[in-house]
Amino acid sequence: MFRICSFFLLAISAALAAEPADLIWSARYVITMDAQRRVIENGAVAIKADRILAVGTKADIDARFTPKQRLDRPDAIIAPGLINTHTHAAMSLFRGIADDLALQDWLTKFIFPAEAKNVTAEFVRWGTRLGVLEMLLSGTTTYTDMYYFEDVVAEATKEAGMRGVLGETIIGFPVADNKTPADALAYTERFLKRFANDPLITAAVAPHALYTNSDETLKACRALANKYKAPLVIHLSETKKENDDEQAKRHTSPTKTLDTLGIWTGRSIAAHAVWVSEADMAILKQRGVGIGHCPSSNMKLASGVAPVTRMLALDMKVGLGPDGPAGSNNDFNLFEEMDLAAKLAKVTTGNPQSLPATQALEMATIRGARALGMEKEIGSLEPGKRADLITVRIDRPHAQPLYDAISQMVYALKGSDVRDVMVNGKLLVGDGKSLTLNEALILQKAAEYRAKISASLK
Amino acid sequence: MFRICSFFLLAISAALAAEPADLIWSARYVITMDAQRRVIENGAVAIKADRILAVGTKADIDARFTPKQRLDRPDAIIAPGLINTHTHAAMSLFRGIADDLALQDWLTKFIFPAEAKNVTAEFVRWGTRLGVLEMLLSGTTTYTDMYYFEDVVAEATKEAGMRGVLGETIIGFPVADNKTPADALAYTERFLKRFANDPLITAAVAPHALYTNSDETLKACRALANKYKAPLVIHLSETKKENDDEQAKRHTSPTKTLDTLGIWTGRSIAAHAVWVSEADMAILKQRGVGIGHCPSSNMKLASGVAPVTRMLALDMKVGLGPDGPAGSNNDFNLFEEMDLAAKLAKVTTGNPQSLPATQALEMATIRGARALGMEKEIGSLEPGKRADLITVRIDRPHAQPLYDAISQMVYALKGSDVRDVMVNGKLLVGDGKSLTLNEALILQKAAEYRAKISASLK
Repeated sequence: MFRICSFFLLAISAALAAEPADLIWSARYVITMDAQRRVIENGAVAIKADRILAVGTKADIDARFTPKQRLDRPDAIIAPGLINTHTHAAMSLFRGIADDLALQDWLTKFIFPAEAKNVTAEFVRWGTRLGVLEMLLSGTTTYTDMYYFEDVVAEATKEAGMRGVLGETIIGFPVADNKTPADALAYTERFLKRFANDPLITAAVAPHALYTNSDETLKACRALANKYKAPLVIHLSETKKENDDEQAKRHTSPTKTLDTLGIWTGRSIAAHAVWVSEADMAILKQRGVGIGHCPSSNMKLASGVAPVTRMLALDMKVGLGPDGPAGSNNDFNLFEEMDLAAKLAKVTTGNPQSLPATQALEMATIRGARALGMEKEIGSLEPGKRADLITVRIDRPHAQPLYDAISQMVYALKGSDVRDVMVNGKLLVGDGKSLTLNEALILQKAAEYRAKISASLK
Repeated sequence: MFRICSFFLLAISAALAAEPADLIWSARYVITMDAQRRVIENGAVAIKADRILAVGTKADIDARFTPKQRLDRPDAIIAPGLINTHTHAAMSLFRGIADDLALQDWLTKFIFPAEAKNVTAEFVRWGTRLGVLEMLLSGTTTYTDMYYFEDVVAEATKEAGMRGVLGETIIGFPVADNKTPADALAYTERFLKRFANDPLITAAVAPHALYTNSDETLKACRALANKYKAPLVIHLSETKKENDDEQAKRHTSPTKTLDTLGIWTGRSIAAHAVWVSEADMAILKQRGVGIGHCPSSNMKLASGVAPVTRMLALDMKVGLGPDGPAGSNNDFNLFEEMDLAAKLAKVTTGNPQSLPATQALEMATIRGARALGMEKEIGSLEPGKRADLITVRIDRPHAQPLYDAISQMVYALKGSDVRDVMVNGKLLVGDGKSLTLNEALILQKAAEYRAKISASLK
């Protein structure tokens, strides 16, 4: 009798004390990627406005919170939204235009002419919309971009409701929008001011690379980034040629030169980092540089294999990037990059235990967030963090049986299994459909650009 | 006037002369994989019973044939059904049970105990159904299998309407169904008789490997295969250890030993072939041995990288295989194997022109058919061949724009883009749904086996 009474009293007091929430999402598994890497069976996440209130078992969350709305996915996994640390979204319109070519032919016969003849603000708007649509549908909630007309990239990203770390490419030759590095720096400063304190857009300073900019431009980039507390995004040691050239010129490595120039004295994200030595990694580790590892791109362009297992052993901040889809990859699918990062590490180290599933998923979530300097806001499901989360179906033949949710995420599940996507507390993809972008119109525009671009290369 | 008249006369005579067909399938692109590797824009395929009647432009096919039924997919590619040259379908029930482990731990702590405790005829039936369902949904129409209770594998394959080259594993220790190689050989002979002249099942003789069988068993396998004109399927030089052991034992390579034993004197399919020398490849080429290249498996288990570009330069018969999903891979997705084969070849040869998209698609179609000795029946869309074909959606964001249909197939499209699948003139997947298998029941059984298998390992 006493027991029953106390049970009822507890239940009543729980109901009375229940805290309001905007949303509860529940699923068969919640992969938190918190410090303990907890996977909660029959788990749930409570959300209020743009933040996560709590993460726990469904029973616990249901007892503690009264939501305005709920989404129950008993046949899915809830995971942190995936984080892309290196890409060129608008290049989606060049998808597969020049595959299987030698690097020089690829650049000089296809990419440079195609860009020179086609890249306009409108091209960038539609290309970014297409890229962002594909990223969202396959579970990416934050992406890192370097391209041209980056203010248009930011507009298209905000319009979709996605999170972006975006930087206008600063490069030592005239491009579609800016004709000199000075112009690009001035453009970037306007861009940094325009998107200051934006909830979704982190404006960045993006010098293309060491070998395409003067030392003075690079130093100006760092100074500008530090003035606005913005991240600096750069390509680093992608090819052996880049290293060989720097060795011939200054008898040192790109990483070391950039260090000497003071470029790493602030939040930095370096894409690729394929040809980095132990000494280079020591510098990158010491300076806290985030790395955008791009396994698909490095394999497809035969750039080489980044020493990722070593970087992880050093606890460096390594994330994943699909790079651009115009030859170096053909899509923006982080499920494929996770799978590939793990497999490439194993075969190149000769050790099947290298880069296990948990590390691969870390790179696509919390470690990617660290690479961007955003680990306090995104990358895991924890109270107080931004509500950036996805559900992934596990009710399809390739997803069953399921012995380990993290292993399944990395090695068996696909971008096409993503069902719902929330960024900053707002549902952007519901039951596999984009809620913020006009898919039919974007596909129509892609076909129109295809005709135009093909004609321009004849 | 004369012109108009002759036009009408031609049109009338064409209509009168139109040949009956059971089906016409049309699509935006038809990838034929014929000798000229033709890709036909606005193309169509006419089908009668289990055979292809004709392939051409939609206009041409519509003029020549009057079909009973038609399927028009203006937003898709029609391609030959994909061919899997090495797998273990029933291991689907062990999907992801033991990832990221050292090879010996993987085998001795997980796979062998899990198999010893769980593999029964019913396990094989449900595992094969699950594997076949996944393969069909992702565009595979023919697969090559080695496992236990292979008569049950064949029954499940026929029930689904899929094409299979299937062999009971013959191995030098007691397994679930056969306790000795002699038993397995007798089983295989009954199996060969039972499925003689079957339209879908090619019964094979499947000694596991050189190192797991006596020379006498291997010779008996070849004799049995030749007696029934059946293919012999075997694992070959998957790991360096296999080669090192043979070097220590007989101072030669597995390929050479098998040649000396006369094992290659007939239709043969060797899986993996990672550690093969130039001399080994010369033997395999001369003997016409088909190779099942397994990039995912070789990467994930850190087995090594097969010299595929060299094999292709020698015009060897190399196909693709996902291997089994219990640690060596986690799915049966040939789109991923195509993409991976191309990228792995590029990064390991240091040449982005290695293994271009056309070669990758060849491996999954006509070259895979050659590996199986079935190139007169399957592997390309040509008049007289079996009607094994698929449609693949190109109306999704990751599929647009499309500059080159073959490149898109290999580098951008996914197994989840497969919309329709026909094998031997019968529609098995329509608009993404299996028409011959009970998906809900198969998924339920997979969950039941998961509980049972997990418990058995505690």
